[in-house]
Amino acid sequence: MAEPKTKRGQIRRAKILAAAETVMGDQGFSAASIAEITRLADTALGTFYVYFTSKEQVFRELVLEMGRITRAIVGEAISDAPDRLSAERAGLEAFLRFVAERPQLYRIVEEARFVDPEAYRDYFWHFGQAYTLGLREAQKRGEISAGDPEVRAYALMGISKALGDRYVLWEETPDIERVVEEAHKMICHGLAP
Amino acid sequence: MAEPKTKRGQIRRAKILAAAETVMGDQGFSAASIAEITRLADTALGTFYVYFTSKEQVFRELVLEMGRITRAIVGEAISDAPDRLSAERAGLEAFLRFVAERPQLYRIVEEARFVDPEAYRDYFWHFGQAYTLGLREAQKRGEISAGDPEVRAYALMGISKALGDRYVLWEETPDIERVVEEAHKMICHGLAP
Repeated sequence: MAEPKTKRGQIRRAKILAAAETVMGDQGFSAASIAEITRLADTALGTFYVYFTSKEQVFRELVLEMGRITRAIVGEAISDAPDRLSAERAGLEAFLRFVAERPQLYRIVEEARFVDPEAYRDYFWHFGQAYTLGLREAQKRGEISAGDPEVRAYALMGISKALGDRYVLWEETPDIERVVEEAHKMICHGLAP
Repeated sequence: MAEPKTKRGQIRRAKILAAAETVMGDQGFSAASIAEITRLADTALGTFYVYFTSKEQVFRELVLEMGRITRAIVGEAISDAPDRLSAERAGLEAFLRFVAERPQLYRIVEEARFVDPEAYRDYFWHFGQAYTLGLREAQKRGEISAGDPEVRAYALMGISKALGDRYVLWEETPDIERVVEEAHKMICHGLAP
């Protein structure tokens, strides 16, 4: 479905998408109804179908949006980093702050594993490819030690996800700075004494 | 619901549970039907209710089972390890081999995030507690460097999960040995050059 051409159309579409993020993120894909999404977006039910073909499509759009935003936020956060280790730290912090701000979007990506496995895999695949490339380049520049960049990329993504679960979603008042500090020490130096 | 007292009852209950693992792991919780589970278990539909009260309960049993088995398998794998770093390696390898053998059980735990959030959280919470304790003790013995043991426990669980996704579930013929080797280097020494 094409993007709406008028400003008004774009705003209405974005409103529906934002409402879908809230409703699907809170209730899960199955329980979320288009009626509730349009009600929250302050729009007539039929308007939904001007912009989206189905609940599945709006869900997939949200997964794609999460991919775009995460890449943009992490990319922005690491753009000023003087080296790769600083970039890892900045990227992890930016990711955790984003999870705190938009927990529903995080949950939607995780639910994609079941609702839309292709979108789920694409999300991590693209992120993993870019991450791998970044680590490979850093290795060439001597900013990090030698090691398979793809295994490391997935390991690092796993760390971010698990810390997002434990220290952001499960906490009333996440102490992101402390968690990043501790995790970063381990990411840089490992567990060896 | 009490465990069945007769050997025959225990076998039948285990058969239903195994069938539920296959059906729910393949199709997801919503699509899985009790009729299909009992068909696969070669049991009458009504027999299901002799052992379980609902689809929700059998799902929760599977999450609990995943917890028990993972703890047992990882515990067994690390019991002979001479020190904590060797234990980390053995534990990661045992976990990935288990994911390769029982991919459905892995998927069921992930789906618990949506189907039974309490069971999901309990699973990681208990695992995280035991992991944290193990790392704290190892730190006291000087086998690993200093650092917050809980943050590290969750980071390490995140690594295992992400590598299980990428290198076991997404691969036709997983090369677990290589992945463990590479991940272990990073876990021991980090990325610092």
